[in-house]
Amino acid sequence: MAETPKIRFGFIGCAEIARKVSRAVALAPNAALHAVGSRSLDKARAFATANGFPAGAKVYGSYEAVLDDPEVDVVYLPLPTSLHVRWAVLAASKKKHILLEKPVALNVAEFDEIIAACESNGVQLMDGTMWMHHPRTSKMKEFLSDVNRFGQLRSIHSNFTFTADVNFLENDIRVKPDLDALGALGDEGWYCLRAILWAANYELPKTVIASRKPQHNQVGVLLSCGATLCWEDGKVATFHCSFLSNLTMDISAFGTKGTLHVHDFIIPYEEKEALFYAATDTGFDEGVTKWVPQPNKNVIKTDIPQEALMVNEFARLVADIKFNNAKPEKKWPTISRKTQLLVDAVKASIDRGFEVIRIQE
Amino acid sequence: MAETPKIRFGFIGCAEIARKVSRAVALAPNAALHAVGSRSLDKARAFATANGFPAGAKVYGSYEAVLDDPEVDVVYLPLPTSLHVRWAVLAASKKKHILLEKPVALNVAEFDEIIAACESNGVQLMDGTMWMHHPRTSKMKEFLSDVNRFGQLRSIHSNFTFTADVNFLENDIRVKPDLDALGALGDEGWYCLRAILWAANYELPKTVIASRKPQHNQVGVLLSCGATLCWEDGKVATFHCSFLSNLTMDISAFGTKGTLHVHDFIIPYEEKEALFYAATDTGFDEGVTKWVPQPNKNVIKTDIPQEALMVNEFARLVADIKFNNAKPEKKWPTISRKTQLLVDAVKASIDRGFEVIRIQE
Repeated sequence: MAETPKIRFGFIGCAEIARKVSRAVALAPNAALHAVGSRSLDKARAFATANGFPAGAKVYGSYEAVLDDPEVDVVYLPLPTSLHVRWAVLAASKKKHILLEKPVALNVAEFDEIIAACESNGVQLMDGTMWMHHPRTSKMKEFLSDVNRFGQLRSIHSNFTFTADVNFLENDIRVKPDLDALGALGDEGWYCLRAILWAANYELPKTVIASRKPQHNQVGVLLSCGATLCWEDGKVATFHCSFLSNLTMDISAFGTKGTLHVHDFIIPYEEKEALFYAATDTGFDEGVTKWVPQPNKNVIKTDIPQEALMVNEFARLVADIKFNNAKPEKKWPTISRKTQLLVDAVKASIDRGFEVIRIQE
Repeated sequence: MAETPKIRFGFIGCAEIARKVSRAVALAPNAALHAVGSRSLDKARAFATANGFPAGAKVYGSYEAVLDDPEVDVVYLPLPTSLHVRWAVLAASKKKHILLEKPVALNVAEFDEIIAACESNGVQLMDGTMWMHHPRTSKMKEFLSDVNRFGQLRSIHSNFTFTADVNFLENDIRVKPDLDALGALGDEGWYCLRAILWAANYELPKTVIASRKPQHNQVGVLLSCGATLCWEDGKVATFHCSFLSNLTMDISAFGTKGTLHVHDFIIPYEEKEALFYAATDTGFDEGVTKWVPQPNKNVIKTDIPQEALMVNEFARLVADIKFNNAKPEKKWPTISRKTQLLVDAVKASIDRGFEVIRIQE
């Protein structure tokens, strides 16, 4: 059987996160680093050299040149959020499949423009939320879906925080209103809201209300915030995200029969193995002096890092479209859109003085 | 040096929790099981026999008889919450020191009557929140107070849930509006709110807003609820409590430099050792593939269980009053009152349709 040709990735922009994704493309067996474009040819060249692009890779002094390269199958788009709609719509019009960094857009209306462009051009769209592709995530999902081990989901708490340094707080695109206006909410809250949706089987909550006292920088970009989400059946979720607290990445999910805890859900403590804690039918001994049974520590090994698994999954979908006439997989843009919808709701609640926002799909 | 005589405990009521506290009194070196009273003499006798009361212990067929026993120094009061104010005020008037189960009252106005009675009679008052007395709690507090390891507190999440069985949901005093009208909020939420106050150095928040979709039983008692608490300086806390989710007891505290996680804060997994996770200045390696440094697991051993340490501390304060003319320690009723104030605020927010409640001391 002839080997399927590798899917060729073209990068537009040399953001920090693109370093990790180029390594992932290099590691994924079905993907190839094909091109990189930057507004500065020197910068693109330096990036290609530093990040293992092969000798034959194309280096361009503009984003357009990547989109115009007929050999590029996939455009990886790590540009500031405010540029997503423009470049994603253009990439789709050039029939490029799009791996889009998160947050996918400044709001759902913009993201709907991107979805429409991808649909009308028959290209695959997926966001760059890497942890979704770790085998641990599937194992945790198995646990959450098991009525005997976890039961019905009743509540979820998630948080993602890190302590940004002075340079980040002054210069990073994520604190600039013209680049990543959603700040910590778009960068970190995205993960928390995705985790909540993931745990809730992507069922949207009915209401979202932001916590009081979010913190903004001097130009009005969110540095920390949180919210409470409620579902019709009584499920409740809370999250907190911040550029101003020590690195933490938690999901805690509470079911009628079980409990899940994970403390490094976005980037595992170690690349080759990751753990989570699962408890079922937890109680006490007769004297209420100890827990019986105690939570289980589950360790999941992976030879391929989660970002390479993400690239592999994306390239697999693209190859299926390119070589087998398959249709784009709607699951990925659908969950991106739901996540963005919740980001928008938190933002709206903050902007309207902590009003309750009702979610409509 | 003559040994200080042991402080003599009289129990009024034979609640389930009294089993654990009688063992604690027996274990505490400075306390003695002296008397137990129940509305039924047979029940009191059976309780005394089953729970290691010594041969000479007094067994009474009424609560009053315990209060009238001149040899009783301390009354342990595990009665349903609705009876606290009546029996605690009466006990204080008989010059008995009071170890009071939580929630301390149905509301802060009632608790203020208890405080006033204790103050005017010069007796010590403390609530039965056992985990406050575990040596792990001091170690965690040391970590939270260390500006180099934890920095400034920014957010807290706590939860306490357990799955109540059918018998509990039908018959337990904690689901009866005439006995423990605060339900899961008074029973479990108490611990979460105490944990939040403890982490925040007992600084009260400015606002409390309950989460939507609390669950009530058919007679209006809370089975699950939660809330968001906000401080003037931007600190935010959330909690969730429920009789309808698997046993879980978490505190997660996020500081500018550090993170604390504990999953069994109320009753440790094991009686003789307890652990917590502490992280400081957490970051990633150069390739953002692993955490550097990773959180530390801290294990704290104790030969004496936390409830015996609680009894020991209470008996120490009482002995100091009884033998050294000391004044009652105000710290304990003060933190009980703050906890009750927050319980009241969550209840008020729920009752008023999820209004924001402003806290006034």
